[in-house]
This record gives sequence, C-alpha cells and structure tokens, in this order.
Amino acid sequence: MHRISLEQLNAADKWSFVADLADVFEQSPWVAEGVLRQRPFTTLKSLYDAMVGEVSAADAAQQLALIAAHPDLAGKAARQGSLSADSQQEQTSSGLDRLSDEEFDSFHRLNTEYRSRFGFPFIICVRRHSKDSILQQFAKRLQHGRDAEIMAALSEIFRIAALRLDQRVIAPDQLQVHGQLSTHVLDLHSGRPASGVSVELFELSEVGNTRLVAQARTNADGRTDEPLIHQQPIPTGQYELRVSVGEYFKQQGVALASPPFLGVVPVRFAVAEPESRYHVPLLVTPWAYSTYRGS
Amino acid sequence: MHRISLEQLNAADKWSFVADLADVFEQSPWVAEGVLRQRPFTTLKSLYDAMVGEVSAADAAQQLALIAAHPDLAGKAARQGSLSADSQQEQTSSGLDRLSDEEFDSFHRLNTEYRSRFGFPFIICVRRHSKDSILQQFAKRLQHGRDAEIMAALSEIFRIAALRLDQRVIAPDQLQVHGQLSTHVLDLHSGRPASGVSVELFELSEVGNTRLVAQARTNADGRTDEPLIHQQPIPTGQYELRVSVGEYFKQQGVALASPPFLGVVPVRFAVAEPESRYHVPLLVTPWAYSTYRGS
Amino acid sequence: MHRISLEQLNAADKWSFVADLADVFEQSPWVAEGVLRQRPFTTLKSLYDAMVGEVSAADAAQQLALIAAHPDLAGKAARQGSLSADSQQEQTSSGLDRLSDEEFDSFHRLNTEYRSRFGFPFIICVRRHSKDSILQQFAKRLQHGRDAEIMAALSEIFRIAALRLDQRVIAPDQLQVHGQLSTHVLDLHSGRPASGVSVELFELSEVGNTRLVAQARTNADGRTDEPLIHQQPIPTGQYELRVSVGEYFKQQGVALASPPFLGVVPVRFAVAEPESRYHVPLLVTPWAYSTYRGS
Amino acid sequence: MHRISLEQLNAADKWSFVADLADVFEQSPWVAEGVLRQRPFTTLKSLYDAMVGEVSAADAAQQLALIAAHPDLAGKAARQGSLSADSQQEQTSSGLDRLSDEEFDSFHRLNTEYRSRFGFPFIICVRRHSKDSILQQFAKRLQHGRDAEIMAALSEIFRIAALRLDQRVIAPDQLQVHGQLSTHVLDLHSGRPASGVSVELFELSEVGNTRLVAQARTNADGRTDEPLIHQQPIPTGQYELRVSVGEYFKQQGVALASPPFLGVVPVRFAVAEPESRYHVPLLVTPWAYSTYRGS
Repeated sequence: MHRISLEQLNAADKWSFVADLADVFEQSPWVAEGVLRQRPFTTLKSLYDAMVGEVSAADAAQQLALIAAHPDLAGKAARQGSLSADSQQEQTSSGLDRLSDEEFDSFHRLNTEYRSRFGFPFIICVRRHSKDSILQQFAKRLQHGRDAEIMAALSEIFRIAALRLDQRVIAPDQLQVHGQLSTHVLDLHSGRPASGVSVELFELSEVGNTRLVAQARTNADGRTDEPLIHQQPIPTGQYELRVSVGEYFKQQGVALASPPFLGVVPVRFAVAEPESRYHVPLLVTPWAYSTYRGS
Repeated sequence: MHRISLEQLNAADKWSFVADLADVFEQSPWVAEGVLRQRPFTTLKSLYDAMVGEVSAADAAQQLALIAAHPDLAGKAARQGSLSADSQQEQTSSGLDRLSDEEFDSFHRLNTEYRSRFGFPFIICVRRHSKDSILQQFAKRLQHGRDAEIMAALSEIFRIAALRLDQRVIAPDQLQVHGQLSTHVLDLHSGRPASGVSVELFELSEVGNTRLVAQARTNADGRTDEPLIHQQPIPTGQYELRVSVGEYFKQQGVALASPPFLGVVPVRFAVAEPESRYHVPLLVTPWAYSTYRGS
Repeated sequence: MHRISLEQLNAADKWSFVADLADVFEQSPWVAEGVLRQRPFTTLKSLYDAMVGEVSAADAAQQLALIAAHPDLAGKAARQGSLSADSQQEQTSSGLDRLSDEEFDSFHRLNTEYRSRFGFPFIICVRRHSKDSILQQFAKRLQHGRDAEIMAALSEIFRIAALRLDQRVIAPDQLQVHGQLSTHVLDLHSGRPASGVSVELFELSEVGNTRLVAQARTNADGRTDEPLIHQQPIPTGQYELRVSVGEYFKQQGVALASPPFLGVVPVRFAVAEPESRYHVPLLVTPWAYSTYRGS
Repeated sequence: MHRISLEQLNAADKWSFVADLADVFEQSPWVAEGVLRQRPFTTLKSLYDAMVGEVSAADAAQQLALIAAHPDLAGKAARQGSLSADSQQEQTSSGLDRLSDEEFDSFHRLNTEYRSRFGFPFIICVRRHSKDSILQQFAKRLQHGRDAEIMAALSEIFRIAALRLDQRVIAPDQLQVHGQLSTHVLDLHSGRPASGVSVELFELSEVGNTRLVAQARTNADGRTDEPLIHQQPIPTGQYELRVSVGEYFKQQGVALASPPFLGVVPVRFAVAEPESRYHVPLLVTPWAYSTYRGS
C-alpha cells in the first residue's frame, strides 16, 4: 500500500489531502474534508481524533449514510470482487474470502436478518476478530435495539478508521491498535533456552477447523526472531500453539521413552483483547511442562 | 466371562481343567494338558510359568502350529465373525472391528506380506497397543528375520496368555499385566482440589482421528472416582486429556476474560509402558497450568 | 499415657468413670459427674458433646471457676513443676518449657496484664499453636471485652477437652482434632518419584529461631513413610521444608553446575488451620522447581 | 574513580600512559611500559591481550615478582589500611574488610600456610567470589603443586587486570567480565505482572550469615528497574531471593488464609559462573509458586 507521511498530508493541497484520506471512512470523503482546516496535525492521534469528532458531530442522517456505505460481510460484493480495496483486504484477513458454502449461507442469513431488522448492514472491525468471533458478535448484536446498534456500528467504524490510518500514514506516534503474541521455550532439563524448537500457531474454530497462522523455530534465546503475531491487532479467538518438544529433546541426545512421553505439546488459549500483549511461554522437560500468560 | 478360581482348577477333574484352560493358548488345549500333573498351583504366577514352560519345551513344529493357530489381525475371520471368543474380544478392544475400508486394506496388505514372508500370521498382543501402535509394530517386524519373528510371536503369545489367565482365573496373586492412567486437577487459584471438572481422555491416531476412551468429572479431592484406565494394560499410543478448566472457573465465580484465556486444556502424551502407572495431574489457575508425569 | 476404651467407660462404676475423666476439664471432675447418667455413649463424639453441654449449661460462677482452674501459660507453676500432668504435656508441646529469659518475661508481663484486666488466666489450646502464634493471640485477645474473653476461654477449653479425650479414650469414631502435613518429591528431570531425598521440617519464629520438627528421607514413591506431622493438630505458625535437591541429583549422576544451581530448596509456608491436611509437594529439576498446596 | 578513554590513552605521552595503567597489574608499571609501542589500541580487548601477552612472555623471575607484589587477602596490610587503592576496593567488595575475629584468624592461618608452602601469597580475583567461595578456593588450592599454583595465580591476576581495565578505561568494546542477576514476578492468580512487590537479595554463607546485597520493588512489568546485580561479575556463592508475596496479594485485595499460606517466599540458588546471566523468575499465586533459571 502507498503510505504517506503526516508532514506530506499537512503540506498537501486540499484536493490531495481529501483524496488520500477519502477511504479512511468507507466511501466518505466528507470526513477528511471536514477536518481540512484543523491542519497542521502534529500527531496521528490528533488527526484521528479530529476525524472521529467530525463523524460524531454529523447529524443522524449523515451517520446513517456512512453506516449504509459499508458492504455486507462475506456478502455478494465480496464474491463478485466489487468491494473497496480496504474492505477487500480486511475481509480477507479474517478468512471471509475462503468460506465454505455452508458458512457463506450462514453469513447470508445473518446479513439478511440484520438488515431487515435494523435497515443497515452489520459492521464490525474484522481485523480484530476471527471468523468464529465475528459469528458470535453477529448473534449477540442481533439481540440489541436499533439505537444500541447505531452506536455499535459507529464504534466499529472508528476502529476500522484507526487501523486504516495506521496502515496509511507515517507519523511520529502510533495509535494503540497493535497487539503482540509471542512465546519463549525454556528447557528446564538443562537449564537453558531451548533453541531450534519448531513452533506453530493455529487459529481454531468451533467446528474443529484449524488454520496455520505462523510458524517458526526458536533462536538461541528460546524465542522466535519475530513475535508470532505483531504490528496488527490479534484477532479475538481461540489459538493453539504446537511446540515440538519430543523432537527437540531427541536432538539434544536426552534419553527418552519410546515413544517419548511428550511429543508435540499443544497450548490452547483464547485472545480476548486484540490490542494487548500475549506472551505464552513453555517451560519444559521430557516429563513435564508449564505455561502461563506472561509479560 | 465365566471366571473360575485357582482352587477349583486344582480340584477339577482333568477334563474340566483342560476344558477351562483350552483357549489360554489359542486353540491349543495341549498346553493345559501338559501342566496337569504339576497341580496344585498355589499362585496364578506358578500356573502361568508352567504353561509358558510347556510351550517353551515343545518342539519347533508344535510351536509353529501354535503360532499358525492364530487368526489374522483384522482379517477375513474377523469380518465374518468366525474368530474365537477371546480373539474377537481382543481385536474389538483395539478398534480393529471398526476399521475404515482404507485401514482394512492396509491390514490386509500387511497380513499378506507378512504371511508370504514368514509363512505364519502376524501375532501381537493387541490389548497392549492402539491401532497406530499395531501398524508401527507391523512395519517394524516385517524387517526382521524369520527366527526373530518366531521368538517375537511366542513372546506375544505369552503376553496374550497372561491376559487371558488374568481375566479367567480368580487367584490370590496377580500377574503384572495391568497399568493405570489417572489424573488429578488442583486449583492453584483457590488452593484446593478442583471438583466437578469435566475430564475426557482421547486416544489419538496419526491420521488425526480421535477416539473417546474415558470421561468423568472430578470428585471433591480433584480426582476421578476411578482411574481413567485401570485393570488392563494401557495400550501403547498417543493420548490427549481434555480438561474443562474455563467452565470450572466460571462455575466458581472467578472473574475471567471473555472468552476465558483457558477453556479446554489439552494435555497430550504418549504411553510407552502398558503395564505402568501414568499419573498426569493438572495444576491450574485461570491464567496458567502445569502438568507432569506424577506418581 | 494410660488409655481406656469407650466400652470400659460405659461399663465402669461411677467412681472410676469420674476418676478417668476428671481432668478432661482442668481440675473439674464435676463435668464427668454430670454426664454419668447419659451413659452408654456409643461414640466419642456423643461423650464429648455431653461434656460440652454440661459446661455450657452450668451457671456463670461455675464456668468462671472452671476458667480460673487453669494455670498461667509459661507461668510460675510451669517453672516450679506444679502443673497438672495434662497441662505439663501441653505446654511442653509448644516449647513453653524452653523459653529464654526474655520470652519468659514477655509471657509473665502478658499474663499479669491479662489477669489484671479480666480477673482470670489467659487460656488457649496450646497444641494448636506455635509459640509465635500464642503470643499473637495473646496480644489480640487483650484487646477484647470481658464477655468476649469468657466466650473465647470456654471455646479454647472445649478444644483442650477434645484433644484430651482423643488421647485418653479408645473409641470407634474420632473427634476431628488431627491435621496432617506431608510432602512428595517428584523428579521432573527423569520423570519419576525422587527417592532417598533428605527432607527436614522446621518451625520458624519471628525472631528468626528455627526448630527442627521432623526429618526423613523420601521412599521409592517420593514420599516420606509417615507424614511429617500427623495424629495431632498442626500448630498454627510458620514452617520451612528443606529439601536436599542438590545432593539427590548428584547421587543420580546428573551433570550439575559447581556449586549446583539448586542445593537445599527451602519451602516456607504458614499453617492457618491446625485440623486440615497440608500437602506440600516439590516438583524439581536441577534448574527449576514448583511447589503448591496440594491435596 | 578517574576514568580515561582509550583514545586518550592512545594519544597520551608515554609517561602518562604508563602512569594511568601502572596498577592494572599490582605495582607493576613494567607491563604497561612493555605494550607502549603497540599503540594505538582500537579496542579494550586488544589492549588487554597485549598486557596479558607481556606478562606471559616475561621470564619466571619477573612473573614471581608480580605474584609476590600482591598483598595477603584480609591480611595485616588490609587491617592497617596500607593496601593499594585497587586492592582495598576489591577486598571490600567481598566483605573481607568486615571479618569477625574468628574469620580473620582463619584467613591468617590459611595465608601463612599458603605462603610457607609456595613462597608467595594466595591470589584470587575476589570480585568473582563470595567470602565462602574464597575460603573454598583457598582450601582447594592448598592441595595443588607449586607449578599449578603459579599458573593459577597468573590466571587470577589476568582476571583482576581485566576488571581493573573495565573500570578504568572507556572504550568502544567491553571485556566479558560482567554478569547479571535479575528476577521477574508474575501473578498467575490474576494473569499479569506483579508490581510493587518487595524483593530482597541476600548472599548466604555456610555459617548461616546472610548479607543483604540488593533490594527493590517490582515495577509495572513485574521486574526491578535495574537488575539486582549487573555491571560487575556475580560473586560465586549462595544467594537467597526473598519475595514478599503475602504482602503483595493482601494489597491486591485477594482473600487469603490468616496467616497467608505464602508470606515471604525464599528462592535459594547458587551462582557458579560470575560472568553469566542469571534470571530467576517467580510465578506465583497465593497457594503455589514456580521458579527456574530463565533467560
């Protein structure tokens, strides 16, 4: 994606400024237009706050138009490839572009029910959710009243806007939109970091599907060179870390049972706060292990 | 199954004695007949040793006939229901009566290859193995020479006999043919045993199948009322204990993330010694757990 | 101590019955006399309840006389050896017979203050307390009003009586007056119980004194043959278990740092409930350990 | 201490250069003089290597003179305050200036024995040892032959020189003479770092003495703002970390037993490699804890 600096935005003519930020709020260049006169912005946070303020100050009809400008989740537009570039990318990130027919039908049914009930599309910041989590939110929000859902839609729109700004604009500060998921494998048999250990991270879904999200080998310090997830929100959902402990101890020449008591250790946990740090270490011997939410 | 006491066996006329023990060695009443004169047996161990001695002292032709008397594993006899009662029950215990067509074909191919190579059927004490473990043994033993396989077959036949005696005869002593698999859930959040926790034990296979082996809820001491597996060998193989930690802490009224960091905790381990004790406890808080091979 | 069965008590003439139970309540045979007609007692609990009922039903003057019959804790009577046999033994159990001059002065000062404030001696069931815990209770109860202290004194007298009955009478049931403190050492380096490990239990006091309470070596199951404390209340107080981990791993032939990272592992914890079970295991490798209140 | 940069040393006239480095080897300016012509030194390591090379290339008489130039450990010179500034500071760091009369006598006896045996003083890099460790080394090295001790003395002199250079010279590189001892307290009850926890580090000696080495409170990340020991070698010896867990959980408003099961948790461990990193975390709930050598 083309990125632009805050300085460039401050210096740009008004047409360029609005063009560059036109899609921060879905198909709604009026938001960028409305904050033009507040330039210069010294931080990304101040630009974000100004745009949120513009939407908040708009009248109800304008807000509803903004909400209505969003496409259905996993809807026809997605199947036909007629989404905006941002929406396309966002829906892909949650796997909404790879639905089974059954899942597509679920989404279609929920979209129809939601629209018929509230008169506008269901909006959620999909980068902060796994597919399962989206379906759970869908079911939950269908129980709400219309006013609550207008509030919820705007709140999700602000989260989407924050992530779009984060990706598009180079600035001296950062919006708090990133989480981090990392691990650390310690060999308590020999009292040192376990290096060269295969680590895989899967996203789990309730119907039993698993999706490989990241894989790596631990380095000399028992960590992966990069966090398993970083520089993005961690989608709310269920995860399983699979650590190849048996293979590691075999390579270390440690005497093991045959088959070894511990082979691949699965560590299953849920992420509830997409913008938080989740550090999930494994302390391990051939016969025991501990794991915990660390820091 | 009809059980008989060692005393009754000692007091029985010779026809009854032989009839009762005729099938301890597959379709080979001559083994029982051969130990008749050594009565009385004061322990089951001495009866077992005598029968093993009888087979060991037999000539090669007799031993081969004993080996040949065994049915194929998961073979036609099994499909047609023409197995001996003992063999039927044993093959059922490992799930050999519930094979997919593909698995059935695998066994058929291996049986054929084994027979054509050695001239007798592949014999293994199936109660000591999971399906995966049987297939691994099959592949391994196909690499052996014929003499080694005759030794291996007799060794497995002795294990089968021990388990049959253990089931059939009531005696003051026990043959060492049982293992035990148990768990214990400790709540380190509140410093007491975790009671009412759902615990499930699955057998895993390499192709990703899982088979529920046992399920229970923990009692006031955090244990299951009975071990998850006991009074039998623990089949060699991969297992996964699934402990419903999230549900437990929710019932305790502990404040949790939503979804809770830990929901169902999977503990995956392998059993290598079917006659051993495997105690696999879980020490748990809403944010951490430890597990180990205990005692 | 001479022990007598409940059956013998039920069958005894009234003089013997009263004589045998005269000192269950300090120098107060009238309590035993009062329950004579309720014989036979089928359980120790029913005898205990009857005696407690007798005291509870007595008038205030009688109750005060019972309270006043008790000696000072660590007082002159103790120094001069003029305590009743029971009191003597009880005070010894908490080390009140081995006070430094400074501690003796503390007790003397507290006794005097308590007596001058309430008109009767400070009573506490010393078998349920360490020396430190007694001093803490002393300070705390000096803050109470007189009625509360009469209640407290009677409550402690009942606990003393229960322990005296427990020691004196053989019965089919047990009063719930015993706790248990045990440990279990598991070697997570080799995946088996750690046997032959030296374990010492110390009672700690605030002034930094330590008193060896029990010592043992672990058996083949990693446990001590007997619990470290059992068949008595565990005195409320601070304890430290010292487990000779370094020596153990050295004997196992495990390669260690020099000096080993872990030598004697101290596990310090407090007992708050003298009649409870405290199981404090140690899961250990040469580089790590865990401990917890188990069950 | 006055520090000088490597650049300044390279640029200095020869008198200043020698003066500044005269005491890197005890009272032996000839070592500095000998490396003058090798200037400029681009790294501290190259300067160190050159000085070590100068000593190594010296003849036996010169080496012995260097050895003999060292004072006795905790000897008369120390008591009389006539040590070189460096030696004074080094002996202070190990507490050799605060010996009991008994300890002083021990050192005196060992010094005399060593001198009478080998003809030169016992030399050890005291910054790498606790008092106990020095005494152990003393006893051990008294068993050696004279040649081995000359080698040992030179080896220790090189370590002393490295530390003196490290303290005196500002350079782009560092000699590998520092270790680090740190901790991290994680609250597994609430799943977050334990902040505000009091942590004390004691050095233990065999005779039961303890010496407070560092104290701190954990910060928001559960760590101390600075490592407990850093920018120096960690003296070989026994340590005890004392973590005020009971106080912490009380402040968190967690319901605890009275007294709490865990109050001050002692973690006792030995340092064997003074230049290594020792990270000793504590994972803790009110009822359980784990510790290990981390990374």
